[in-house]
Amino acid sequence: MIKDTKIKVLEANLYLPKHDLVKFTWGNVSERDLDTGYVVIKPSGVSYDNMKADDMVVLDLNGKIIEGSLNPSSDTKTHLEVYKAFPEVNGICHVHSTHATAYAQAGKPIRALGTTHADYFYGDVSCLRVLTKEEIDEDYERHTGLVIVDHFKGSKILENPAILLEGHGVFTFGKDAKDSVFHASVLEEVAKMNVLTETINPEVKQMPSYLKDKHYLRKHGKDAYYGQGKKK
Amino acid sequence: MIKDTKIKVLEANLYLPKHDLVKFTWGNVSERDLDTGYVVIKPSGVSYDNMKADDMVVLDLNGKIIEGSLNPSSDTKTHLEVYKAFPEVNGICHVHSTHATAYAQAGKPIRALGTTHADYFYGDVSCLRVLTKEEIDEDYERHTGLVIVDHFKGSKILENPAILLEGHGVFTFGKDAKDSVFHASVLEEVAKMNVLTETINPEVKQMPSYLKDKHYLRKHGKDAYYGQGKKK
Amino acid sequence: MIKDTKIKVLEANLYLPKHDLVKFTWGNVSERDLDTGYVVIKPSGVSYDNMKADDMVVLDLNGKIIEGSLNPSSDTKTHLEVYKAFPEVNGICHVHSTHATAYAQAGKPIRALGTTHADYFYGDVSCLRVLTKEEIDEDYERHTGLVIVDHFKGSKILENPAILLEGHGVFTFGKDAKDSVFHASVLEEVAKMNVLTETINPEVKQMPSYLKDKHYLRKHGKDAYYGQGKKK
Amino acid sequence: MIKDTKIKVLEANLYLPKHDLVKFTWGNVSERDLDTGYVVIKPSGVSYDNMKADDMVVLDLNGKIIEGSLNPSSDTKTHLEVYKAFPEVNGICHVHSTHATAYAQAGKPIRALGTTHADYFYGDVSCLRVLTKEEIDEDYERHTGLVIVDHFKGSKILENPAILLEGHGVFTFGKDAKDSVFHASVLEEVAKMNVLTETINPEVKQMPSYLKDKHYLRKHGKDAYYGQGKKK
Repeated sequence: MIKDTKIKVLEANLYLPKHDLVKFTWGNVSERDLDTGYVVIKPSGVSYDNMKADDMVVLDLNGKIIEGSLNPSSDTKTHLEVYKAFPEVNGICHVHSTHATAYAQAGKPIRALGTTHADYFYGDVSCLRVLTKEEIDEDYERHTGLVIVDHFKGSKILENPAILLEGHGVFTFGKDAKDSVFHASVLEEVAKMNVLTETINPEVKQMPSYLKDKHYLRKHGKDAYYGQGKKK
Repeated sequence: MIKDTKIKVLEANLYLPKHDLVKFTWGNVSERDLDTGYVVIKPSGVSYDNMKADDMVVLDLNGKIIEGSLNPSSDTKTHLEVYKAFPEVNGICHVHSTHATAYAQAGKPIRALGTTHADYFYGDVSCLRVLTKEEIDEDYERHTGLVIVDHFKGSKILENPAILLEGHGVFTFGKDAKDSVFHASVLEEVAKMNVLTETINPEVKQMPSYLKDKHYLRKHGKDAYYGQGKKK
Repeated sequence: MIKDTKIKVLEANLYLPKHDLVKFTWGNVSERDLDTGYVVIKPSGVSYDNMKADDMVVLDLNGKIIEGSLNPSSDTKTHLEVYKAFPEVNGICHVHSTHATAYAQAGKPIRALGTTHADYFYGDVSCLRVLTKEEIDEDYERHTGLVIVDHFKGSKILENPAILLEGHGVFTFGKDAKDSVFHASVLEEVAKMNVLTETINPEVKQMPSYLKDKHYLRKHGKDAYYGQGKKK
Repeated sequence: MIKDTKIKVLEANLYLPKHDLVKFTWGNVSERDLDTGYVVIKPSGVSYDNMKADDMVVLDLNGKIIEGSLNPSSDTKTHLEVYKAFPEVNGICHVHSTHATAYAQAGKPIRALGTTHADYFYGDVSCLRVLTKEEIDEDYERHTGLVIVDHFKGSKILENPAILLEGHGVFTFGKDAKDSVFHASVLEEVAKMNVLTETINPEVKQMPSYLKDKHYLRKHGKDAYYGQGKKK
């Protein structure tokens, strides 16, 4: 039921301030309701302290409000473009978390420098270009979505479910809202480690691809043996 | 009533240690009481733990104490000069928050490097010069205010409501005490991001002005569509 | 009794998130049960929130599960190789703590730069090489253990009970699980200090060996006089 | 009564872990009991969790234990040398706080870069040399005290009540135990700011001496007007 999805989206949004991924009302999380195909998203500029499940806004993929009396997140169109392009994405999270956003502001990727990264992100997390003035004038949030879609086209987005936007912040993706928030939390920790790593050794190179493969695949491949999913 | 303003000023001051913007008794917040035109400010050197609304000091714009048995903040004259010069400023906050103060100590501006900054500060946050020995000898706190006033003269101070003082700390402004404290909190987070950004990419440039305009104006311009103020 | 060892291993694992040494399910701690010679280790990928003593997995040194219905930590073989090689090691901890892991990612040792380090680690904490593709293909976790064993062969491992693995993270050792976790906690603090130290002074040299000896030996030598062990 | 001093010393020691100035049992605080001239100090290597006032050790200035069944802090002789040389010092604190210790490990002073520093420390906080092997062999802790005494000889130690020891950590001084701990807390914050300041601007210079004088003297000189001590 859509009510359950609203509760899940609320909980995913509340996770953000609790884990220091946002300050104030910055950041937003959405989930695609699998029964209806509608998108449930946080309202714009509402304090986390008083947010209720029924404040969540329900929209169809064209942005038409189906339920809810509040304005949806100002970044809603970005979410919708990603949902339209990638059926496997059912959760999206947008944050300005401190360290990952510093990479976005620096216009640099978060490189795969260790197994913490490789356990969740299969390769570097890229930093996408600033939109042109024309794109911003026409429709800032929709074009942001289109740039993300263009980047992931033809790849498996959930194998590397995060992206930086130059001069702005972070979008992460998941199989539901909670999963997208989890990826934002991992990315922030990885970004923090990378600033330190590059400070300690400015010449540091990406990890060998066979180590990257090993770590990603022991958690995510068909022969994964991490966790309790199957006996080794 | 002035009693309500005292409560608001107390609460705004208590926000500072709670959000790691000050240590000990460092920092002070004031508000202009709109009914009387008086300024309500924190007392000097009093511990936050025991501070009560009635400890707040009420002064007129010439610094004459109207109510209160304690000494006002030693920075009071700086506040008064700003209130005298800018009728739109009704709250002022002074802190030595760690990262923003590091920029002040470094004598460098907090540049507009991303949309987190642009959402609240329209352009770089400048770092003003150290006072001369003559100014300090004559009246340190008043001249500090005059240097701030001189910098903002002819501009809309609440469009970029923060300033650094070289070798010292931060002043932020707002439409009331709480708003000025909010700006101090945003500035500290932006300063933290900027140190990281400039560490990651020492060559980083300001964001394009059209992106800066877009973000500031979607929150603050007459066509703002962020939040719940008007339907998009 | 093995039940007591399970409780000790659970408590040592719970220490990790409480002291910010791991996020999520990252990290694992084991202890050798002195009565049976079995190894008790955390299960793989189980949330710390709901972990119970009976979830701990008991194995013999060949990796045969003696007790427990869950998969053991995916790093179990690394632990076993170290227990087999060093009878004095009865506790092992693996974490991706932020600052120590940054050194591992940078491929750099954590050098002995001060007495905080020298109080617990007798000399630099080395960073071991990435495994070859052949080693990873054959048995990643076992070869990781063998590389560690090879490094410490012929030395007193508990005099410098920590090691970094390039591109990966940290293993620490102790006389029991709790002791190994304590060493992980000290190493993370030392790593944090070292990043700062090397930022402040990129030319910094190791501390003089006689100061290193003094601090290590006043805590650990036969004439140790720190603490309440013997009257000075 | 000496019992009251024990309570004060206990409370000053407990302040350290609460304010992130020490980890584990690192750090120690003492106070000179004004009635007896005895020194009351934390016992060595005892956990902060269970420490009681009666665990504090009372010694005379020659190090003879007057009261207490536990070994005193291993740094006791350093404290005693300072108490013997400076009658105005009645509290001493030793910590390995993260940022100040990084300066000590780097062998660099904590320079006076801003008014936060100048409000409490009148000039740079120096970093003293490593002891020679001969000094360490003879009596490490006593010679540490002598090097500190030599540095402050002829100056007003309480005007700049802190010192770094190269490759080691921090000692701070005060008019009682609590005051010395307060100075350790301020120094840690100043050190944190300075690492950031020097990262932002590696060419940064000390603040002008007239600004340093102004801030120190508005808090501490005979014409001080900060706080509630006298009406301005």
